[in-house]
Amino acid sequence: MPIDRIRAMELHRRAKGKIKIYPTINIVNEEDLSMAYIPGSVGPCQAIQEDLEASYDLTGRGNRIAVITDGSAVLGLGDIGPDAALPVMEGKCLLFKLFGDVNALPICLDSKKPEDIIHTAALLAPGLGGFNIEDISSPNTFTVVHELQKIVSIPVLCDDQHGTAVVMLAALWNALEVVGKTLEKASIVICGAGAAGLSVADLLMKAGATGITLLNSAGILCPDNPRMNHIQLEFAGRTNPDGRRGGLEEAIKGADVFIGLSKGGLLDQDWVKTMSPNAIIFAQSLPEPEISPEAARAAGVAVMASGLYDYPNVISNLHSTPGIMRGALDVRAASLNDTIFLSAARALSSVVDRRKLTPQHIMPDLFCDEVVPKVAEAVAQAAVAEGLAAHPLPKGQVYTDTWERLYGGRASRL
Amino acid sequence: MPIDRIRAMELHRRAKGKIKIYPTINIVNEEDLSMAYIPGSVGPCQAIQEDLEASYDLTGRGNRIAVITDGSAVLGLGDIGPDAALPVMEGKCLLFKLFGDVNALPICLDSKKPEDIIHTAALLAPGLGGFNIEDISSPNTFTVVHELQKIVSIPVLCDDQHGTAVVMLAALWNALEVVGKTLEKASIVICGAGAAGLSVADLLMKAGATGITLLNSAGILCPDNPRMNHIQLEFAGRTNPDGRRGGLEEAIKGADVFIGLSKGGLLDQDWVKTMSPNAIIFAQSLPEPEISPEAARAAGVAVMASGLYDYPNVISNLHSTPGIMRGALDVRAASLNDTIFLSAARALSSVVDRRKLTPQHIMPDLFCDEVVPKVAEAVAQAAVAEGLAAHPLPKGQVYTDTWERLYGGRASRL
Repeated sequence: MPIDRIRAMELHRRAKGKIKIYPTINIVNEEDLSMAYIPGSVGPCQAIQEDLEASYDLTGRGNRIAVITDGSAVLGLGDIGPDAALPVMEGKCLLFKLFGDVNALPICLDSKKPEDIIHTAALLAPGLGGFNIEDISSPNTFTVVHELQKIVSIPVLCDDQHGTAVVMLAALWNALEVVGKTLEKASIVICGAGAAGLSVADLLMKAGATGITLLNSAGILCPDNPRMNHIQLEFAGRTNPDGRRGGLEEAIKGADVFIGLSKGGLLDQDWVKTMSPNAIIFAQSLPEPEISPEAARAAGVAVMASGLYDYPNVISNLHSTPGIMRGALDVRAASLNDTIFLSAARALSSVVDRRKLTPQHIMPDLFCDEVVPKVAEAVAQAAVAEGLAAHPLPKGQVYTDTWERLYGGRASRL
Repeated sequence: MPIDRIRAMELHRRAKGKIKIYPTINIVNEEDLSMAYIPGSVGPCQAIQEDLEASYDLTGRGNRIAVITDGSAVLGLGDIGPDAALPVMEGKCLLFKLFGDVNALPICLDSKKPEDIIHTAALLAPGLGGFNIEDISSPNTFTVVHELQKIVSIPVLCDDQHGTAVVMLAALWNALEVVGKTLEKASIVICGAGAAGLSVADLLMKAGATGITLLNSAGILCPDNPRMNHIQLEFAGRTNPDGRRGGLEEAIKGADVFIGLSKGGLLDQDWVKTMSPNAIIFAQSLPEPEISPEAARAAGVAVMASGLYDYPNVISNLHSTPGIMRGALDVRAASLNDTIFLSAARALSSVVDRRKLTPQHIMPDLFCDEVVPKVAEAVAQAAVAEGLAAHPLPKGQVYTDTWERLYGGRASRL
């Protein structure tokens, strides 16, 4: 076993859970008990019974979300089930806390039926301020997010759909700026037509992209493709403007951009050489990207990015998801929409100082303190503008609040 | 508004949630991310996929429970709904942490159908080490606990049923010892035939009690009673040995013990005077007991106890529930049974030094450091003896483990 893998196992064994519960109130005597429990809880209960809104003032609901999975599409591991998904869900909850100061509960559901997941999530809503749907396989994830958002009045964020779409769009805007191309005219190949690939395609088109070609494991989404689910079929009708047929080799010829959201090692170095000059590659598959950074550079691409922490141009949902949720919770958004996601992407891309934008630096450092507050601010303002915020803060205050909450001191990050 | 109520509201408003999530791992750079998230989670995920048991070593599952309610029977407030129940559920989670070092998630379900609650809870099981069912109205609570335990292999504890039964039995053993009577011969009136009343009656009978009379709001459980659910009907057949008819006034004549699990103020001082000499009263209704300690004492009872923190002889589920859950988790009990609850009650009653047992001191102080470890130890050993423990620790080690975990240092309580 590689040494890093042994160390990671040892870390998990020692931690016995990457998150735990922390009491905000200490109780050392009967008076404390009276205040915090009985009869002290009676007033808050009655206040909420009279006005449900009071639960945002008197409980932790407003800053608590559920990270919900069925374990059907976990990392590159696939359908490993809800029990085995737990280390990743705890990890996501840990990152929500450290990056967004959001209290996230890991929920691994023992059912892969969308109706079960939707019904269960809806029943959990009274104690929550939002949902993050995670690692549910496509197309179920689309059904779950869409149907759940219809019946709850708290935001339903999907890390794989929305988080990935926002970060890909932000990174692509910056990469295209570096190479002097535009989103509107770029020829973009998206390899992978699961939750992430389809959502990225959708948001890119909403942002003005016109030249998108999508592929699933059976090839280009087009009338010839024998294996498309109903959503892929719908996308086949509004992508692939050149009417290409075949696989990745056929799709990538002359392309400006390759976005990989599929499997490690799928992209052949020789195919990369057939791309347009100043090509851009985002090889996001983890833990192994579609092509290694070394191979891509050797093939002459202008901008190479991936999800690998130990190379330049890391692109990660950590750039997007914690900030989006932070902003949504801060203004108590009832739901999220594409206008909000476009604002989030715009804000995220703007975090990189234009004077520092280079082929090796298209995205801010993952630990850059500006990322989450700027994304959160954009989401909050957009939700207010869209009329989706139950709790609109005055303009200018949101940003400051988020910033101070997150970075006011070390303690506040814990 | 009374000053204490104002202070309690202010405390809740400042806390904005009595619990929050705490990260056990800090992440300050890319290497930390690799270890704790991607690809560091891959090994633990695969290990659990191969052997589900590994989730107890590699995640927080083994020390995490869900506190589940539908908000249908909250404190003395009744059916206030899942949103309004949240302050109490957060309070319960806070107490599980502070008293038992258990990580409890507050789950307020938006459905009062037992089948919904059972199904939802079962779906949540993969991320959990146990359930605490809380403040669900009777008889639904019996259905939920019974059916849920049939389909999950983690312990389903019910605070109102099991927690109350254990603490009442422990307190009653001690009170009877003080007045020189025995459980087997005592005439016991239990006012309240909801989750708590019925469960107390059941465990008392399993411990040897023969003279129990139960009452619901329509009077003594007996063939004449016009308002009995199916469980009360069943209890009517095996209680009330004297065949009494009528209400509390008729039931209590000549009784040795009154246990109130009903509503404030129900017990008339004059009726108390008709009890046997050396009468025992546990008036557990909160926030107002069935009779005030002053009135009971003036009526000449020998032992008066209640749930009121500011009087002697506090009896609270805090004496029982955290320790039972701690013990069940420590040995990974697959379920709980009456033998285990009897052991817990026996251990709890034994915490009071026999030389210090007096009419004003039948129960240990709520903050006595011995309560939770002793109860946990008894539960753990009994679960092992009953063959219900997946993880039996060697005899003698459980106690030490629990003790050190809870009280090894201040930090471990947080």
